[in-house]
Amino acid sequence: MSSVSPGRRERLFDQIVRKQSFLCVGLDPDPEKLPEGISRDIEGVHEFLRAIIEAVSPYCVAFKPNFAFFESFGPEGGALLKSVIEAIPDDCLVIGDAKRGDIGNTAAAYARAVFDQYGCDAITVSPYMGVESLTPFMAYPDKWTIALALTSNPGSQDFQRLVLRDGGVLWEEVMKACMKASDPDHLMFVVGATHPHDFKRVREIAPDHFLLVPGFGAQKGSLDEVAQQGFNRCCGILANVSRGILYASDMTDYLEASTQVARTYQRQMADLLMAYELIP
Amino acid sequence: MSSVSPGRRERLFDQIVRKQSFLCVGLDPDPEKLPEGISRDIEGVHEFLRAIIEAVSPYCVAFKPNFAFFESFGPEGGALLKSVIEAIPDDCLVIGDAKRGDIGNTAAAYARAVFDQYGCDAITVSPYMGVESLTPFMAYPDKWTIALALTSNPGSQDFQRLVLRDGGVLWEEVMKACMKASDPDHLMFVVGATHPHDFKRVREIAPDHFLLVPGFGAQKGSLDEVAQQGFNRCCGILANVSRGILYASDMTDYLEASTQVARTYQRQMADLLMAYELIP
Repeated sequence: MSSVSPGRRERLFDQIVRKQSFLCVGLDPDPEKLPEGISRDIEGVHEFLRAIIEAVSPYCVAFKPNFAFFESFGPEGGALLKSVIEAIPDDCLVIGDAKRGDIGNTAAAYARAVFDQYGCDAITVSPYMGVESLTPFMAYPDKWTIALALTSNPGSQDFQRLVLRDGGVLWEEVMKACMKASDPDHLMFVVGATHPHDFKRVREIAPDHFLLVPGFGAQKGSLDEVAQQGFNRCCGILANVSRGILYASDMTDYLEASTQVARTYQRQMADLLMAYELIP
Repeated sequence: MSSVSPGRRERLFDQIVRKQSFLCVGLDPDPEKLPEGISRDIEGVHEFLRAIIEAVSPYCVAFKPNFAFFESFGPEGGALLKSVIEAIPDDCLVIGDAKRGDIGNTAAAYARAVFDQYGCDAITVSPYMGVESLTPFMAYPDKWTIALALTSNPGSQDFQRLVLRDGGVLWEEVMKACMKASDPDHLMFVVGATHPHDFKRVREIAPDHFLLVPGFGAQKGSLDEVAQQGFNRCCGILANVSRGILYASDMTDYLEASTQVARTYQRQMADLLMAYELIP
């Protein structure tokens, strides 16, 4: 249990209060989806993402670059990722969406890559290989480890919801085991907005942790339901929207369209934060 | 179920028979462990790995670059990885040890990265997000998808061995679910040599599949036990050794030392293949 940075949740909450937003914007750069007037190559992606980041950063508290889409450019994708991350303002958390997880010395190498080389503030990790595969990430006192618990996709039914002999469910066991190895100032969980009825149980297990919640927009999750069941005294929710913001328009007005969608989310979030008395 | 390449197992078995080896050499390039006389930087790693590949390739049928160690160099790691993979002879399978796994469109981007950009013949994948997160890899007719089942590390106890209400065990459910989505000419499983008593059960579930077996060398798995319980009519085992071969010596004689260790494994494997009448 590392605890050299007490109050990390509070500092994140301060940003949420200041921006009246708990929005995370996912950066999934797919050349096929780039709007009109942007070249469908790595330079186009670079131009597009830097413009999007500048336009929407007033309305969000985090960006989540999805490593897969950068890696799909091959060796040049690393420099693109680094440059895009450098363009993210300091008042936004950088969540490396990498879903890593491997034995100790390999996990330590992934941590060096994502935290030290690319400068991410947080990483998503996949728990199949056990808590041991996550502790090298958790060991960073000034970083966040975000463990997959109950993901937003239909495939979350396959294994995460398997019922155990003792009555538990796999995703609950994953949360409990991770919580023994870290604390709410260093550990978050991924819980999909597509499972609104599970947020009550999530909060019984982990009342204090931040949750990274994908599944809005294309996947139809409800912000109201997530706020009702998921808010805690530090907000405790980072709601991710990727395609719904990035590809709000495929025309030359794309920046206005993306900004408009981000602002709409921010206003809805401000209303919810007020409704639950998290901001005045 | 893709089945446009029948006989892929047999073609891999042909290589095993020809080389009298089922050895996979893991490429985990850690600058701190480089031998004397090699510079502890990305150029040193490049020189070291290309020399190792040339020296040990007569004794193995596969190489397994561990993506974490390449990524830990940051943006330059991609070019290193590509160059190292290009140095692997055509008669060796290239297994991208990346442990990827994410929702469909993201998994498809990882597949483009590992298969199309880096030219790997196979990828290791982590199943926590469900079968849906693996099918984009399985859809490549000329590639292998290698799903984590029962990994070699102590953390494999945490979740993989959880007993389910219906009497099954998580790692067995993972294997069964993956087998419904692919076939033994496209799907392998990771099963650690540190679990010799489970190979019988593995072969009950998946008699025909190849298994990628880590956990020899540093982790003390026994080749004899794995062969006894795990061999099938196409051998069905790729036994991985990483550090035991790469870092056989930290002196200037490192190439001789690595070659010697690889050759010793190969001879032990030839004896086992003969003992079980897989080669004349």
